[in-house]
Amino acid sequence: MSPETLTQIMLNAIEDELRQAVHQGSRQELNDLYKMMEYHLGWEGEGAGAEARCKRIRPLLVCLTCAAAGGKWANSLPAAAAVELVHNFSLIHDDIEDNSPVRRGRPTVWKNWGIPQAINTGDAMFTLAHLTVLGLESTCTTQIAYQAAAILQETCLELTQGQYMDIAYESQKELTIEGYWLMVSGKTAALLAACTELGGLVAGSSPEEQQAYHEFGHALGLAFQAQDDYLGIWGDAELTGKSTESDLVTGKKSLPILYGLHQRGDFFERWMQGPIQPEDAPKLARLLEDEGAMGYTQGAADLLTRDALQSLQAANPKGEAGQALKTLALRLLRRQI
Amino acid sequence: MSPETLTQIMLNAIEDELRQAVHQGSRQELNDLYKMMEYHLGWEGEGAGAEARCKRIRPLLVCLTCAAAGGKWANSLPAAAAVELVHNFSLIHDDIEDNSPVRRGRPTVWKNWGIPQAINTGDAMFTLAHLTVLGLESTCTTQIAYQAAAILQETCLELTQGQYMDIAYESQKELTIEGYWLMVSGKTAALLAACTELGGLVAGSSPEEQQAYHEFGHALGLAFQAQDDYLGIWGDAELTGKSTESDLVTGKKSLPILYGLHQRGDFFERWMQGPIQPEDAPKLARLLEDEGAMGYTQGAADLLTRDALQSLQAANPKGEAGQALKTLALRLLRRQI
Repeated sequence: MSPETLTQIMLNAIEDELRQAVHQGSRQELNDLYKMMEYHLGWEGEGAGAEARCKRIRPLLVCLTCAAAGGKWANSLPAAAAVELVHNFSLIHDDIEDNSPVRRGRPTVWKNWGIPQAINTGDAMFTLAHLTVLGLESTCTTQIAYQAAAILQETCLELTQGQYMDIAYESQKELTIEGYWLMVSGKTAALLAACTELGGLVAGSSPEEQQAYHEFGHALGLAFQAQDDYLGIWGDAELTGKSTESDLVTGKKSLPILYGLHQRGDFFERWMQGPIQPEDAPKLARLLEDEGAMGYTQGAADLLTRDALQSLQAANPKGEAGQALKTLALRLLRRQI
Repeated sequence: MSPETLTQIMLNAIEDELRQAVHQGSRQELNDLYKMMEYHLGWEGEGAGAEARCKRIRPLLVCLTCAAAGGKWANSLPAAAAVELVHNFSLIHDDIEDNSPVRRGRPTVWKNWGIPQAINTGDAMFTLAHLTVLGLESTCTTQIAYQAAAILQETCLELTQGQYMDIAYESQKELTIEGYWLMVSGKTAALLAACTELGGLVAGSSPEEQQAYHEFGHALGLAFQAQDDYLGIWGDAELTGKSTESDLVTGKKSLPILYGLHQRGDFFERWMQGPIQPEDAPKLARLLEDEGAMGYTQGAADLLTRDALQSLQAANPKGEAGQALKTLALRLLRRQI
């Protein structure tokens, strides 16, 4: 079987498992509660479909890691569904916290059903995530289900800590580079690290291998964020027709912007004068480049990518799943294979 | 040792366990996140103290049940702290969902720190609750920790389902009596049932005893709510100086009010004309009484109290903890012993 075929088979199984996971406890009189969750996951309502569903990268990481570590990937499905639900619970709440009306081209849950129901729907999805991971008891053992539940909860604590920092930084003038890495570590890297660690756990790999998989996921998350921040300023779209989406215009505290601010040069002066218009974005991007932010960001992304690939190699992934795992990592980092 | 002394010793141990539970993962740069949780739990900030702390009835139920079922109650402390954190997580989110600015005489978390941080603080407390219950692995076994985690998650699913109904009913003209019991079952009874079941689980009691304890907690929750709804209209305060707090004035969909509405009599007519003023509350209360709502509510509370006490007897609680458990139940229901 080719790595592509394997990946597609896994994605289908993940979608089935997710549907089962979400429908736990569903009853006639609770129809709308479950409809909100189905809507958010891209199954229901206007605009439902592949576009609205995200790419299920996190559950795929769980299954691929499990297989690459020599386990039966189908046994990891409860963990795979659980991480996707954790991810989506956090998106439902983030959208309220960030006051975002649109996600994946559709109105967010709070926009459609109001803030009270959206908070509660996020809570329900959070609970379903943790109920689902306990299902590893049937595919594995009670011991593994227990350990997986602990890993997932520790991860959620890191997620909420990262989110706390993110919200707190909104009202602060400046964020240190150190603070940035701490925040990204909680908000992005922790869940990816949990995905790969859970895959290794279910496969029954050695503590060393599990640790290597954890580090792979963590570095992958950090590298992804650095790369994403790079593209948010120097990506094709940002420098051509779509500069309205540039991080310079939305004012996101991304890595190159933070780096630029810390130089206290011309970029800092301009930034302090107020919002940047789309037509000024290319000029500001050049300024940032001149002040070293491009080099720093690309350097950080390169270093972290190398870290990720080294950890992956140390974990010694096997077979077509191992190949698919490497392909997925490189695709996430928008690198050539 | 007297039941009162035992109860006090437990309450002290619960408070220590709670503090440890809440501080998991705390670090310098996350100070404010933990401060929000400490504030909500009544330990920090203006107005901190016994008044702000609630009575810790749920964790006390866990410890007393464990002891009454013949277990070492100290072993149940992780479960006790966990249920209190689940309760308080739900209060933090409820306060946002209900737009309530005050709780226990102090500004709510969202009122002090804004909605985004309050949502996230609730999420953090939710996670800490589930991390804490996993601590039963050290005081009991992995198997028991796993079962307790599953019980607590199932309970949280019921909580969010009940909360969904509560919010959904806000925008509906009328709620059926059946709908009321379903909502109360999720919002109030489910967590009390989990408390007593967890106590039995940690004590290693038989499945029959655990079931009896579960039913005791569940009936206790329903009876408490019915009694509370009764007092919300015919309590001393409501009929004398403080009619502003009458459920008739606040418009709460309580059991006697729902019963009255379903009679389609004079009470229904008056209710449909719009908000009730404090000075009209005593008259409306008499109308409700005449139309049978008082008798129905008191009857329901009596029946459920009997159910609760029967289940408690079936569970066969022992020693001074058994006495304290019965005392606590009767005190909650405001009955004479």
